[in-house]
Amino acid sequence: MDRRSFLKGSAAAGAAAAAVAASNFPAPAIAQGKIEWRMVTSWPKNFPGLGTAAESIAQKITTMSGGRLTVKVFAAGELVPAFGAFDAVQQGAAEAYHSAAYYYGGKHPGFHFFTTAPYGLYAAEQFAWWAVGDGEKLQDELYAPFGVKAFPAVNTCAQAVGWFAKEINTPDDLKGLKFRTAGLNAEIFRRLGCNVVQLPGGEIFQAMQSGTVDAADWVGPWNDLAFGLHRVAKNYYTPGIGEPSATIEMGIGKKHWDELPDDLKAIVRQAAYSDFQEGVGQFIVRNAAAIGTLVNEHGVKVRPFPDPVYKALGDAAESFISELSGGGDDILKRIVKSYYSFRNSSMAWQQHAEQPYLNIRAAGPKFAV
Amino acid sequence: MDRRSFLKGSAAAGAAAAAVAASNFPAPAIAQGKIEWRMVTSWPKNFPGLGTAAESIAQKITTMSGGRLTVKVFAAGELVPAFGAFDAVQQGAAEAYHSAAYYYGGKHPGFHFFTTAPYGLYAAEQFAWWAVGDGEKLQDELYAPFGVKAFPAVNTCAQAVGWFAKEINTPDDLKGLKFRTAGLNAEIFRRLGCNVVQLPGGEIFQAMQSGTVDAADWVGPWNDLAFGLHRVAKNYYTPGIGEPSATIEMGIGKKHWDELPDDLKAIVRQAAYSDFQEGVGQFIVRNAAAIGTLVNEHGVKVRPFPDPVYKALGDAAESFISELSGGGDDILKRIVKSYYSFRNSSMAWQQHAEQPYLNIRAAGPKFAV
Repeated sequence: MDRRSFLKGSAAAGAAAAAVAASNFPAPAIAQGKIEWRMVTSWPKNFPGLGTAAESIAQKITTMSGGRLTVKVFAAGELVPAFGAFDAVQQGAAEAYHSAAYYYGGKHPGFHFFTTAPYGLYAAEQFAWWAVGDGEKLQDELYAPFGVKAFPAVNTCAQAVGWFAKEINTPDDLKGLKFRTAGLNAEIFRRLGCNVVQLPGGEIFQAMQSGTVDAADWVGPWNDLAFGLHRVAKNYYTPGIGEPSATIEMGIGKKHWDELPDDLKAIVRQAAYSDFQEGVGQFIVRNAAAIGTLVNEHGVKVRPFPDPVYKALGDAAESFISELSGGGDDILKRIVKSYYSFRNSSMAWQQHAEQPYLNIRAAGPKFAV
Repeated sequence: MDRRSFLKGSAAAGAAAAAVAASNFPAPAIAQGKIEWRMVTSWPKNFPGLGTAAESIAQKITTMSGGRLTVKVFAAGELVPAFGAFDAVQQGAAEAYHSAAYYYGGKHPGFHFFTTAPYGLYAAEQFAWWAVGDGEKLQDELYAPFGVKAFPAVNTCAQAVGWFAKEINTPDDLKGLKFRTAGLNAEIFRRLGCNVVQLPGGEIFQAMQSGTVDAADWVGPWNDLAFGLHRVAKNYYTPGIGEPSATIEMGIGKKHWDELPDDLKAIVRQAAYSDFQEGVGQFIVRNAAAIGTLVNEHGVKVRPFPDPVYKALGDAAESFISELSGGGDDILKRIVKSYYSFRNSSMAWQQHAEQPYLNIRAAGPKFAV
């Protein structure tokens, strides 16, 4: 693979400023057996589904621990920039973060798989790989040099491809397009000729409006509506294949994690698992409401890419992943193998279960209640 | 609807014996601020995915509370019979249960929807309806007369139709078939001419072997393999439409719930949410492994029903649900309306998201790692 192209969009620059910006804030209070954590995030304050999930997990931990462990949430930019969350924890400027591993894929390409991967796992599978499969063990190994322990803390569910100023009818229509996207998806679209741009969510609207980008992926109807992306483009292509689910994680400085007694360790872990399930529920409900608003009130045209475009994306994804795992990096190879072996195994049952069920349901009775 | 036919298979008889059987056991200890709950279940001890989930949630609560609230799990038959769990809690013979609401559909048909419903919600949607939609509020109202407070605690994911001694090629092949199934699914198959039988899971194998039943639904590959159902039939039809996901709940005597301080209340709720997510992960992983074993080692023939059979099931389901909600029972009407409105709303986005994504993934690159 062309590693430099792939890494070009990384968040390294933003991250470098993190520790400096945070250095003027007081260290966490530990008094009378009470522990206080600062949790930096990559989201605007209370941003739907992401900022709200950060508040939710903080509240759960605080309540379950009876106040022995309190978590204070900081929006992107309050302590450190959106993409500086991981570094802030690594460097001790915050005790915890709420962010997505793939924003830090510039540190190591293995990070991506703990968020999502092309043609990969849907939300419950992504969690299952981590919690029941080998995901946690591999992430612990990958994060050890950074001194971070992470837990999956919510998932956006299947994401759209995104918003396009012009219609996409053939793979050629992607050539030369300036496209804001993230993660491994970026390299796949680059291989199809896009000029890929990585931007924090909060900067997408302006970039679309000013023509700095021609197309943009953010999340799904709920989040995209919140940023008003329907006001700058009407072509909404979905589903994407690069982010079939995206896990947001809560990362904790390893030394802070290790210091917790067993009951608080269990509380943090179960709060993350619980918030994952509840957050997925929020995305299901709010996306359903938002797609109606986008279509009925804003005239958005919602449809999939034509088959040849998916075919071209699939070919690019397969060769890209093959190059990634064959590149000689041992842990990357093991992560890729674990992830796609899990996927292939799960599909062997899913092809008889959720997949055909959803098709049968869609073709079945209407239950107009 | 023919209420008597629908209720014929109810668990009322087994339940009646519950309080008697349990009356010789000591009441829970409450000493030095420590609370101990007895949790009766409908599962054999450590039965895959169900008994193990009961142990898991008990462990989570005990650990997170630092031992202030301990939960002791009882297998089916230890304190009360499999289908006596709800009644045991209602009558105070146990503080909590781990069971499925639809086993108690004989008390009120509304119970069914808190487990699953025909052509209904997949696992994450079923949770979302409860936790983000109106499910919890409606269940609280429905359970108030019984003095029970419940939380969704795990879900089996999409279930198979089940095991059939003979092939099913047309709707007529179902006529006269003695079929073990549960919940609202039972009434749908009855309308297609089956003689429906309700049995605890532990009695299915023998009933199939002795010819007492010709076909049986239990859960999915993992659980069905554990009961050895492939040894008594080779035709495995899947997916079912009656249990697109089945929530197992943790129910608690309302007075015991009300007595908990806020931190323990949060611990119980989050343990349930967490175990739901983790349990779904277990089902995803173990079903995937089991389907391989069933097909490759035991020669099981796995396939869907022919389209006309699904069509007949869909017609029966739609008229049945319409009769249920039109029967003049106010809360039943509100539950049905809430459930299917939620379903229809969710499908408006799912048709652009998980549903097509799973199809595109199945048709896409193989990622043979």
